Amino acid sequence: MPLEFTDPQSLSHDALEEGDVFAPRFDDKGLITAIAVEASSGTVLMLAHMNAEALRLTLETREVHYFSRSRAHLWKKGETSGEVQKLLGIRVDCDQDALLVLVEQTGRGAACHTGRKTCFYRVVTTENGEPRLTSTGEPRLFDPEVVYNR
Amino acid sequence: MPLEFTDPQSLSHDALEEGDVFAPRFDDKGLITAIAVEASSGTVLMLAHMNAEALRLTLETREVHYFSRSRAHLWKKGETSGEVQKLLGIRVDCDQDALLVLVEQTGRGAACHTGRKTCFYRVVTTENGEPRLTSTGEPRLFDPEVVYNR
Repeated sequence: MPLEFTDPQSLSHDALEEGDVFAPRFDDKGLITAIAVEASSGTVLMLAHMNAEALRLTLETREVHYFSRSRAHLWKKGETSGEVQKLLGIRVDCDQDALLVLVEQTGRGAACHTGRKTCFYRVVTTENGEPRLTSTGEPRLFDPEVVYNR
Repeated sequence: MPLEFTDPQSLSHDALEEGDVFAPRFDDKGLITAIAVEASSGTVLMLAHMNAEALRLTLETREVHYFSRSRAHLWKKGETSGEVQKLLGIRVDCDQDALLVLVEQTGRGAACHTGRKTCFYRVVTTENGEPRLTSTGEPRLFDPEVVYNR
């Protein structure tokens, strides 16, 4: 039987925030925000979204699935690149509209489609009142032109 | 002169993802997602949103500001609770629609309005195909009924 999620509207505020009923609050587009973190290091790898089906598949297969907003479809992380994320755990936040997804990043260890471990490879700096980006020096672990056949 | 942000539409795909121009991609509601992380420990504290004004104030004052979607207004984190977040750094992701905000969580060290350090204090478990939540045992560092005068 496929996993069913409780409707958050059926819960009191207290039950939503302090209870043991999992009632993910999908937004008006049917999506919930997911932060993927490498469990072993705590590094924030990426931010993405899941619809109910992606969340269900993630919990059932223990491999992380997302819903791409730009391509408007469900995808298994790593289905093209091989960079599959093994699910080690999921936490939900106080009002149940965000998930923290603890993963083992397999493959070459690159969560980002640019070939880097993490999507957060640039720092915002403000010199003379003008914001700029500076690279953290995060190396590419694969060449996206090869992996995605561009 | 207040900080100005570049319009991401003015950049090429390559410049957006690999360049040094900060062009935050606010969504159709004018918001960008922000993950607050405790810089010293790497703990993910909370997920919230910023509009351009909140981001500007955060960069200018070095204290973190957010935009509340439920209350539809700008707020300085800690303005009621005292749990101010000092900004230590901001990173942006590959396509510039998410921010990683590195903070020192001041006050009692509780980022969550429930009084806990982190909003992610419950784990999703699936026994017998039914998802449930289990507490991580994260302690309350303040009593929300006292702090928020409920």
